[in-house]
Amino acid sequence: MIIVTKPEATEAQIQHIVERIDEWGLKSEVSRGAQRVVIGVIGPEDKIREKPIAAIPGVESVTPVLKPYKLVSYEFRQTDSLVKVGDVTVGGKDVVVMSGPCSVENRDQITSIAKDVKSCGAKILRGGAFKPRTSPYTFQGLGVEGLKLLAEAREETGLPVITEVMDTKDLEEIEKYADCLQVGARNMQNFSLLKEVGRSKLPVMLKRGLAATIKDLLMSAEYILSEGNFNVMLCERGIRTFETMTRNTLDLNAVPVLKAETHLPVIVDPTHGIGVRPHIPAMALAAIAAGADGIMMEVHNNPELAKSDGEQALLPPEFEDVMRRMRAVAQAVGREM
Amino acid sequence: MIIVTKPEATEAQIQHIVERIDEWGLKSEVSRGAQRVVIGVIGPEDKIREKPIAAIPGVESVTPVLKPYKLVSYEFRQTDSLVKVGDVTVGGKDVVVMSGPCSVENRDQITSIAKDVKSCGAKILRGGAFKPRTSPYTFQGLGVEGLKLLAEAREETGLPVITEVMDTKDLEEIEKYADCLQVGARNMQNFSLLKEVGRSKLPVMLKRGLAATIKDLLMSAEYILSEGNFNVMLCERGIRTFETMTRNTLDLNAVPVLKAETHLPVIVDPTHGIGVRPHIPAMALAAIAAGADGIMMEVHNNPELAKSDGEQALLPPEFEDVMRRMRAVAQAVGREM
Amino acid sequence: MIIVTKPEATEAQIQHIVERIDEWGLKSEVSRGAQRVVIGVIGPEDKIREKPIAAIPGVESVTPVLKPYKLVSYEFRQTDSLVKVGDVTVGGKDVVVMSGPCSVENRDQITSIAKDVKSCGAKILRGGAFKPRTSPYTFQGLGVEGLKLLAEAREETGLPVITEVMDTKDLEEIEKYADCLQVGARNMQNFSLLKEVGRSKLPVMLKRGLAATIKDLLMSAEYILSEGNFNVMLCERGIRTFETMTRNTLDLNAVPVLKAETHLPVIVDPTHGIGVRPHIPAMALAAIAAGADGIMMEVHNNPELAKSDGEQALLPPEFEDVMRRMRAVAQAVGREM
Amino acid sequence: MIIVTKPEATEAQIQHIVERIDEWGLKSEVSRGAQRVVIGVIGPEDKIREKPIAAIPGVESVTPVLKPYKLVSYEFRQTDSLVKVGDVTVGGKDVVVMSGPCSVENRDQITSIAKDVKSCGAKILRGGAFKPRTSPYTFQGLGVEGLKLLAEAREETGLPVITEVMDTKDLEEIEKYADCLQVGARNMQNFSLLKEVGRSKLPVMLKRGLAATIKDLLMSAEYILSEGNFNVMLCERGIRTFETMTRNTLDLNAVPVLKAETHLPVIVDPTHGIGVRPHIPAMALAAIAAGADGIMMEVHNNPELAKSDGEQALLPPEFEDVMRRMRAVAQAVGREM
Repeated sequence: MIIVTKPEATEAQIQHIVERIDEWGLKSEVSRGAQRVVIGVIGPEDKIREKPIAAIPGVESVTPVLKPYKLVSYEFRQTDSLVKVGDVTVGGKDVVVMSGPCSVENRDQITSIAKDVKSCGAKILRGGAFKPRTSPYTFQGLGVEGLKLLAEAREETGLPVITEVMDTKDLEEIEKYADCLQVGARNMQNFSLLKEVGRSKLPVMLKRGLAATIKDLLMSAEYILSEGNFNVMLCERGIRTFETMTRNTLDLNAVPVLKAETHLPVIVDPTHGIGVRPHIPAMALAAIAAGADGIMMEVHNNPELAKSDGEQALLPPEFEDVMRRMRAVAQAVGREM
Repeated sequence: MIIVTKPEATEAQIQHIVERIDEWGLKSEVSRGAQRVVIGVIGPEDKIREKPIAAIPGVESVTPVLKPYKLVSYEFRQTDSLVKVGDVTVGGKDVVVMSGPCSVENRDQITSIAKDVKSCGAKILRGGAFKPRTSPYTFQGLGVEGLKLLAEAREETGLPVITEVMDTKDLEEIEKYADCLQVGARNMQNFSLLKEVGRSKLPVMLKRGLAATIKDLLMSAEYILSEGNFNVMLCERGIRTFETMTRNTLDLNAVPVLKAETHLPVIVDPTHGIGVRPHIPAMALAAIAAGADGIMMEVHNNPELAKSDGEQALLPPEFEDVMRRMRAVAQAVGREM
Repeated sequence: MIIVTKPEATEAQIQHIVERIDEWGLKSEVSRGAQRVVIGVIGPEDKIREKPIAAIPGVESVTPVLKPYKLVSYEFRQTDSLVKVGDVTVGGKDVVVMSGPCSVENRDQITSIAKDVKSCGAKILRGGAFKPRTSPYTFQGLGVEGLKLLAEAREETGLPVITEVMDTKDLEEIEKYADCLQVGARNMQNFSLLKEVGRSKLPVMLKRGLAATIKDLLMSAEYILSEGNFNVMLCERGIRTFETMTRNTLDLNAVPVLKAETHLPVIVDPTHGIGVRPHIPAMALAAIAAGADGIMMEVHNNPELAKSDGEQALLPPEFEDVMRRMRAVAQAVGREM
Repeated sequence: MIIVTKPEATEAQIQHIVERIDEWGLKSEVSRGAQRVVIGVIGPEDKIREKPIAAIPGVESVTPVLKPYKLVSYEFRQTDSLVKVGDVTVGGKDVVVMSGPCSVENRDQITSIAKDVKSCGAKILRGGAFKPRTSPYTFQGLGVEGLKLLAEAREETGLPVITEVMDTKDLEEIEKYADCLQVGARNMQNFSLLKEVGRSKLPVMLKRGLAATIKDLLMSAEYILSEGNFNVMLCERGIRTFETMTRNTLDLNAVPVLKAETHLPVIVDPTHGIGVRPHIPAMALAAIAAGADGIMMEVHNNPELAKSDGEQALLPPEFEDVMRRMRAVAQAVGREM
């Protein structure tokens, strides 16, 4: 940690800062420049990361040297983690596609779409049973009934199932049916939920919040790992910017940054990310070229009657087409699909 | 709702759109321009707001005419709501100040600060018992023990207490001690939590999320009201922008916009909003001038040893000074304090 | 154009709106809903696009039906434009790479780098002679001397040259040496400059500003085309968001959106876009997969002594490597390079 | 400057960094932590601020200690600057209001509005002759004819005149008529223009760009001061965020931050800042409470026929009303108006 003092800081204030560092069990090194004093803090930064050093009179700025995340950092493990969802491995050479409808609506719908996406090469089935909806007046998901239908679709197709958990009180029920938990963008900093999924035996896909920095995303993942669950995948799904011709701004920059910062697999969701149906395929191809380990994409067999997000679901033939193109790009960058 | 078709939309597609509207029980009016067809949808917009109209082939854009929120809208009630927190009324002529430390740390700290802020004119005591922290390795709050200390501070000072609820499973316990629930920025779209506090007897202060539009905030409030709890206050506490010289960007534009859109009281939190101690007073004054019904502000008697957010807490004498200046501005804009 | 009135709008106000539309030579169609009146305006929208209709009492909102850009729109031309830079064609099957240093520093530097990038497959040489720098105390470019060195490098390598024009008064001089003009992100809405380059015989690459929407970019391009210069390329080079682990947020979403909205070629600049050297190659690959017609990338033979932006320039061997990978991705998406 | 090395940095790389610092004529101090080496650079930071230190192998991060702006900094002058516009002083105890229409349209319009705003207490007349417009098809201003009309309005009212300069080639002509130059938000980083107005004898009001950080704004002002013109005012006029219920997000946080960072006067433009007519007064009051030295506000006597921005202009009676309320707030915060 590096502390820079204000130009008007007094000798007594500088002394006080040095004493505080000492009290906290760390060593300080004072360098005096022409206009400001710089105090380097030597020792385990964790000990004082959350101390309100900026509140000490005379301090102008505080700059950490080390990163605030540990278990998720690439430095910690130094090799890419593989996460198993059912018997599918994410994070290896294969680019894994997770697909299905936004919401589970009924048995026919989920089973039929599950078969479609499997036949096109998807490896994991997605479908929402508990749905976070902006408006209280819209379809909120089938709940436990939806979980049961997902499990039936798994029986029929063999695809493992990922579904969202929105509340700690639903977790136990969801664990009975799902193969992988999803924590949605809006709950990325629901720390109670993060701790609970951190105690689950199931793998977790954590989606980046709309206003979350990459560092925030890693800190939220750190919550899960720190509770003992290392089977975590991170998912970029668009951030909020000033642009209005797309629903969100899919931030593919996050892909290479995350691949360098963490050992966890990185998934990209172009459906929510760009949110404009005709442009989803281009973003899926770009995500793979950028280095994504997996793609989550929504497919619906009758989008104009879908109960949620129909305007951004691909039709099965569109999905088949983009899968073929994704495969070509995956091979061009040395991956399989 | 107004539907604009693509220039290349076929007559059959336009017919299909009209039929869908008909199926949904609404009337359509078709206007043919030189390049595009415009279809007006007449009737209760709620019925089709969430229909994926944009997924229908031939549709270029869909523009709602009515607002998606109802119970929270000014149109619905046509008069400002008054919210009672203990025996304090928020939303009337008085600008109400809520103050206290970020976290409850121990009996002495909370009681001493409670007395300080009361003597300066604060009407409601704030203090966190369950704390949402970015890092799992930092102080997470005293939990139920913190709630008890808050209740003791209320005993001593008579100030009603507001505290944050982070998880539906904690709600029952918090209701035993608090006078007002706070839903934090990170949980603004935790819809399970919104529904639960919507069933509470206590008033709720809902904070705007970092990436939440004003409309999103109103939709989240709509969740609470739609469950029957109309005692809701909205709180602007900063949005995330590209600026780095402030912690967040306190969006005071939200104050006049909210006052026009909704009947609910509007609170501003300059402490988190700008997040830079020396600049908090200026933003508090500006918030009152902009029309805020209340101010939430953090005060700590020993910021450099605070367990959270010490770097942005005011000292009691600083708080006393800003309260005096706030009173002058309140009077200048026809309010009391 | 669709005008929605306020719920409290009077009959006289509605009549006044209709009369105004009439005065402006257009037709109106009035639909009366339960709560609001909707007035459709039929006729050439251009005529009233800039009328301050929202200033008329009783108006709640005004929604245009048609897009504000014409000459740049895909609808206008219905086929992709090809832009010639020297004898290089941009916008066809070939993905064209423009490369070179940030600034021209001296003869050896620019000639040596020009040879390097040519041997790796770059088709156009970039180099700044007039440099927009955030600080007045840093290297501002060699000016005309730099232009001469660029022309010499063209002599030696045969690569046509693109360079930035910052001021209308420099244009004539730059036209003597360059094959293509670049309008930088900071000047994207310097409308005087746009008009002047619109009168130039040279092709123009227009870079998207940091806070420019895609619509803003197209409107700025419209300025150039409306002066008669149709040889325009658009360049995505990163927008400003809250993320701090990258210099900017390269918005690849803009690629498919622009390819659908306009006939003009779309270039991507991953160097400035992500601005973090090790991650530039991933973004270049992703840009091609997303459908970019060209890539602009900075290369320097001694980055740690570069006079500007050395920290984001690739070394020649790194450039050679990414060119090989870019070629593979281009082929995977049906392009050549 | 503080350089942190990568954990894997070799001893040779660290040595190389130290040598570079030495070559640049500065001293280095090396501190070895458990995981990383920290190199403090002692001496005048300006010398190496723009060196691409991050391009040196082994460097993880580079953090400056000193601020990149000098002449504009509060530290440089240690007292507030007063800027004279005609015989009006900006930056003292008086809050100065600049008002008038968006564009000069004709003699009657500008003279009549000038009289109106003067009678309400405005001290400076604004009016655009050269207009930056998003669309090439809209009114671009009257040019020199507009300047003459502004000068006539000054004759009639005695109000000094501020008007925008968009291009270096227009500067000489504008200097003949205006009392103060305005550099608009879109030209905030038009460095050629900044240098030219830096050589002018007239005072300059520099508006913050839509995506400009406060630091960027100060750096652009530094360009003007570094050419010798110290009569500079800074103007906050809204930044671009994700919010869509306001035209821009007026960032009042910038007011206290700028007042602390620089000696230059700070103006706020709520008209463009929030851009929604009924909410402009609230933001004007808030700006004064936040500490603004002046307010720029658009007034039009017939907004629905205005040639630009009519939808956000106040009517003279609305302006009179807000002026009265602004005066009360100014007094409440110890200012005059």
